[in-house]
Amino acid sequence: MGETFDLAEHMAKRTALVDKMLDELLPKESEPPEALHKAMRYAVFSGGKRLRPTLVLDACEAVGGDVMKALPAACAIELIHTYSLVHDDLPCIDNDDVRRGMPTCHKVFGEAIALLCGDALLTLAFEVLSKEQMKVGVATDVVIETIGMIAEAVGHLGMVGGQVMDVEAQSMLTRDMHLSEELIREIHKRKTGALITVAVEVGAMIGGASVEQRKALRAYAHELGIAFQITDDLLDAEGNHAKKGEPNIATVLGIERSRQLATEAVERAIENLACFGERALPLRAIAKFVLLRKR
Amino acid sequence: MGETFDLAEHMAKRTALVDKMLDELLPKESEPPEALHKAMRYAVFSGGKRLRPTLVLDACEAVGGDVMKALPAACAIELIHTYSLVHDDLPCIDNDDVRRGMPTCHKVFGEAIALLCGDALLTLAFEVLSKEQMKVGVATDVVIETIGMIAEAVGHLGMVGGQVMDVEAQSMLTRDMHLSEELIREIHKRKTGALITVAVEVGAMIGGASVEQRKALRAYAHELGIAFQITDDLLDAEGNHAKKGEPNIATVLGIERSRQLATEAVERAIENLACFGERALPLRAIAKFVLLRKR
Repeated sequence: MGETFDLAEHMAKRTALVDKMLDELLPKESEPPEALHKAMRYAVFSGGKRLRPTLVLDACEAVGGDVMKALPAACAIELIHTYSLVHDDLPCIDNDDVRRGMPTCHKVFGEAIALLCGDALLTLAFEVLSKEQMKVGVATDVVIETIGMIAEAVGHLGMVGGQVMDVEAQSMLTRDMHLSEELIREIHKRKTGALITVAVEVGAMIGGASVEQRKALRAYAHELGIAFQITDDLLDAEGNHAKKGEPNIATVLGIERSRQLATEAVERAIENLACFGERALPLRAIAKFVLLRKR
Repeated sequence: MGETFDLAEHMAKRTALVDKMLDELLPKESEPPEALHKAMRYAVFSGGKRLRPTLVLDACEAVGGDVMKALPAACAIELIHTYSLVHDDLPCIDNDDVRRGMPTCHKVFGEAIALLCGDALLTLAFEVLSKEQMKVGVATDVVIETIGMIAEAVGHLGMVGGQVMDVEAQSMLTRDMHLSEELIREIHKRKTGALITVAVEVGAMIGGASVEQRKALRAYAHELGIAFQITDDLLDAEGNHAKKGEPNIATVLGIERSRQLATEAVERAIENLACFGERALPLRAIAKFVLLRKR
């Protein structure tokens, strides 16, 4: 296949679309309570690559769906991703002062506002999923099913559960206990993988995917999530950004073996896109990009 | 009207119904991540009076609806109430060590788990609203509308917004600034009133309320919320539990004037129930109870 697809241009277009709607959805900074609304916008518009909403839209398009119908869900998933970063950065969890080269939300607005900012972003995501999906004509049963899928993916057995396991693993590492490859993979699967997978699944469902198409896209997303998590740890390990006390698959398996696993996961991800032909060019390009990305 | 209604017995029955379903909805403590699941159950089963879920069920019954159809929404609202208490108790907000005579969630499980426990409870509420409402046969448009209403009521302009205003008011008090009656009322309306109001509205909607019935019940809930907030502050002020630095309407208006305002609000609340006859006995009894309740 002559894949001269320009991923950078594609991502820029998707980001513009998503950011425009996020700007409409988020409260104005001048509206009280101003501190909260400023914090929400600060956290959301902080230079994220909008990978997850792009996956929602690209999965929708891969099955021939209307991207505009998937846009509210794409924005909701980015709001949820942002809330998770704001809470993870808080002193009681990762205690990070800097994200993407900028002071973290609690460094700018204080811990109380940052905590409540995360709560407000998560809540807004579900408001968007119910109200905005109806406005763009998503079928009622699809609206309800996407809300249930997303809540499950980011809840106590999904993203939040993975974050708890991460906290517990960090506590094990401070006691010099060994983390198995299996445990680190399980943490990754929940903490990062669940949201990536549900992004793709929700986009497919809104796009009207068949059972087979959903299965293929779920398999794609699962492998993409694995590749994403391993390369994340590789970037940390190679750049000496690996924080002592944080679970890192690359420090357990070594750089070479980790790179090989990531490459294989991307190959398997792309194999699952065969049935979609040209329509899956963006999803294919994203999978390849994961191996090449830099901080 | 010969109102020999036994509110204590009624509340006990409602609590049993709600607690049984909450027990089914919450993950087992033995299921990993155990710390999270233990924290979720600790927070939810800590002796709350289940006022908000009772209001959901009683509003449903007041309009002749099937209580079992309103039970998932009742549980979801109690999960949201619990999440808000867990987050409010955290050191960065109210820094409370004790709630209902027991150590708060973060005192038992640590700040990180308590924060994530709140996140998981909020997320579970929306999972319940989508999946469990469908299981008991709530109409799809009602499922979607209740999700949107609840998300709005507890979001950045509702409960979370009120909590932010409360944090800001506390900061004003530490600088010896005066809080107006209007500001305290606005904080109360959002922080406490919004969830009470939406509990009644959602119950009414699931019960199939007419436009007039919804309007009357919304007015009831609004007045009930006002009475509830004032008596809360009165209990604090009279029992010398009023924490220096927390907004309290009774310390601004005085005990007598506050008690009068609460009594008037309860009278107006009950006036709005006239059209429901005997079916509104529980809602009437709850309004009267608010004036008499103790810590």
